[in-house]
Amino acid sequence: MRMVDIIVKKRDGFSLTKEEINFAINGYVSGEVPDYQMSALAMAIVFKGMNNEEIVNLTSTMLHSGDIIDLSLIKGVKVDKHSTGGVGDKTSLVLGPLVASCGAKLAKMSGRGLGHTGGTLDKLESIPGFKVNLDSNQFVKQVNDIGIAIVGQTANLVPADKKMYALRDVTGTVESIPLIASSIMSKKLASGSDTILLDVKFGSGAFMKNVNDAKKLAKTMVDIGKSLNKDTRAIITDMTQPLGLAIGNALEVKEAINTLHGNGPKDFVELCLSAGSIMLQQAKICNNLDDGRKLLEEKLKNGEAFNKFVEFVKAQNGDINYILDPNKLQTAKHIIEVKSENDGYVDEINCLEIGESAMRLGAGRKTINDTIDMAAGIILNKKVGDHVKKGEILCYAHTNIDDFKDIIIDIHDSFKVLPEKVELKPIVHDYIK
Amino acid sequence: MRMVDIIVKKRDGFSLTKEEINFAINGYVSGEVPDYQMSALAMAIVFKGMNNEEIVNLTSTMLHSGDIIDLSLIKGVKVDKHSTGGVGDKTSLVLGPLVASCGAKLAKMSGRGLGHTGGTLDKLESIPGFKVNLDSNQFVKQVNDIGIAIVGQTANLVPADKKMYALRDVTGTVESIPLIASSIMSKKLASGSDTILLDVKFGSGAFMKNVNDAKKLAKTMVDIGKSLNKDTRAIITDMTQPLGLAIGNALEVKEAINTLHGNGPKDFVELCLSAGSIMLQQAKICNNLDDGRKLLEEKLKNGEAFNKFVEFVKAQNGDINYILDPNKLQTAKHIIEVKSENDGYVDEINCLEIGESAMRLGAGRKTINDTIDMAAGIILNKKVGDHVKKGEILCYAHTNIDDFKDIIIDIHDSFKVLPEKVELKPIVHDYIK
Repeated sequence: MRMVDIIVKKRDGFSLTKEEINFAINGYVSGEVPDYQMSALAMAIVFKGMNNEEIVNLTSTMLHSGDIIDLSLIKGVKVDKHSTGGVGDKTSLVLGPLVASCGAKLAKMSGRGLGHTGGTLDKLESIPGFKVNLDSNQFVKQVNDIGIAIVGQTANLVPADKKMYALRDVTGTVESIPLIASSIMSKKLASGSDTILLDVKFGSGAFMKNVNDAKKLAKTMVDIGKSLNKDTRAIITDMTQPLGLAIGNALEVKEAINTLHGNGPKDFVELCLSAGSIMLQQAKICNNLDDGRKLLEEKLKNGEAFNKFVEFVKAQNGDINYILDPNKLQTAKHIIEVKSENDGYVDEINCLEIGESAMRLGAGRKTINDTIDMAAGIILNKKVGDHVKKGEILCYAHTNIDDFKDIIIDIHDSFKVLPEKVELKPIVHDYIK
Repeated sequence: MRMVDIIVKKRDGFSLTKEEINFAINGYVSGEVPDYQMSALAMAIVFKGMNNEEIVNLTSTMLHSGDIIDLSLIKGVKVDKHSTGGVGDKTSLVLGPLVASCGAKLAKMSGRGLGHTGGTLDKLESIPGFKVNLDSNQFVKQVNDIGIAIVGQTANLVPADKKMYALRDVTGTVESIPLIASSIMSKKLASGSDTILLDVKFGSGAFMKNVNDAKKLAKTMVDIGKSLNKDTRAIITDMTQPLGLAIGNALEVKEAINTLHGNGPKDFVELCLSAGSIMLQQAKICNNLDDGRKLLEEKLKNGEAFNKFVEFVKAQNGDINYILDPNKLQTAKHIIEVKSENDGYVDEINCLEIGESAMRLGAGRKTINDTIDMAAGIILNKKVGDHVKKGEILCYAHTNIDDFKDIIIDIHDSFKVLPEKVELKPIVHDYIK
């Protein structure tokens, strides 16, 4: 078998066999297939796609390229949830303790933020002392003890994806549903949980810019999961504007705490309840989504969800004083009011632009080696559909940077205020199972 | 400027600017752009193509990546000719001395054979003593003295193409008209002649399998030449069966000598006269193609073309005794008769298959490091349209390999004999100028 023949076959629109996919991926991981052949194959896949069987074989080969986490020592149904990333997406911080407080087991591996999208690990690390590295025994023990642990990805989880993603990032081959789906699903499947809920976002702040691509990606991933005998479902959610009101690490932790106290922003609470009720059904804790939603609402109301978060932070060495009094969390030197120049209704908040502005304020990484300012970010005062008067505050920019003038202009410009009220869309657009 | 943005731009179907093409190609030659990005760009070009302006800019950038040969010390019009390669294509061996005997100057750089296609340098080296490496002073002096020299490509001619072709060869990105056209034309333009005649072949034995692709490639190359102010023309010629009767290095030299004596196979003679008359018009030696054809026929008849070949071989250190008595050239241990099993007419000779069989008999290289058996090859006894009786000889296989049985079966099977006579097509299908 020769890699060049595999490339030509895909280039000419034919399906690759399981053996050919194995040859390419395993050869690439071992170094026998060079970067320049893998990038050519990836570009051919961008153009010619892959059928379901190819995608399943690709995912399966990638999945088996490294360690597969064994969670069998954890009692009960291990649920997992993955978001394709967005602006202000602090969902795991609330959803994790919330479903754990209902009895589901969440043994989750999370990632860091890059570009305009944030990462769960960074947000957790804005809590002083919080440790994201647990060894596998600690990890299993913590989930058995309290029902939840969130850690960084271990070194040898899907090395094929690590190598391929780094290559795709610099060769214009990221934008391919088969490659995105196999990348996400190989990691989720290798993480060893019993069920997977995918939160596939669409809109300017998401990786998928339109709802049809998001649905296609979600459907592809659900099919992969089913083919590999894993209960996999997906929700399609709106990322045309930031989720909730807070963008930035410590600011989002504060919002998560408020939400766990029952005072969350409407869209964010709705997302947590929708996703959580599906996860409770996957965990066989509730028979239907309505029962799940009621149970979750109860846990938010009676304080058990918040208490679970405190337990979780404590278990991972975080200082719970910062959770019990979130005002202790880092705050920025400058808090700048960004005001509207017109009367009207917020028609749009460009989510990519405001996400990038938050990054420039210090809340995110432009490149993988940048450091994050935990205190930096943006708090929205108005969301899409809200009425605003001329001179009224649209949002607050939090930063330790002194030269923030240009960024504030860009934040201002990411709001579009029009005379007519736009029709509001639900946060959860679709449910695919 | 970032290479990944250039790849994405092409992937998404946009045209690249001159600056972007420069950045990519010069960066690749200097090593700043890695193989894996160039192969991804090449694959994006395979799918999305390039417009004329991009192709001209690509060719021009490649052309200037290394030395440009200065032929200004050669008096008269320097004509050049390039074939896209085929089976039994010994055209340069006849056409070179033929046009030189009419007063045109041919300062030609040639290549070696690979796969089922032969190379002019290999064929010339079947003449004992023949040297294909001349320094630039010798090269210029020889063309001034006798009107013809054929040498190997110098080391630093279009290094961009050398590096890109090696990469394209292993990444499934050879089959792209913009990339093929710029590869050929950058080398031809860097070779410094005043005029270029392209022999673009189509058919099973050619790189372009159908006539439309051949025309498209020819048109693209002629346009490149014109845009860069070079008199560039093309003929589209038939490679659905081998050219002439001989395939293999010494065998083709013998056929070339016969042709220069006026005893060449009809199709091959016709190709030489068609191509030669265009070259004489390009050299401004004849005003029209008819006059050119008459002059060429005269030179074949009166022995001047053959004498020019002898002069040429002598000038490049070849032993002319082998030219004056071609029976002295190497012969193979085995000459196997391949016979027809049916009565009928030869309907097809699969040119790719017979070319590959000749290679397996020893006449060609499978990989660049293989050595060639100069004596090996095939002599056709029947061509397409010929009548053949059961038991009559289709061709002779010449080889020094003892285990030739399977190859002979394949050679036999490359002939298709049918009851009805097929309509014969002219060797020169079209002329593009």
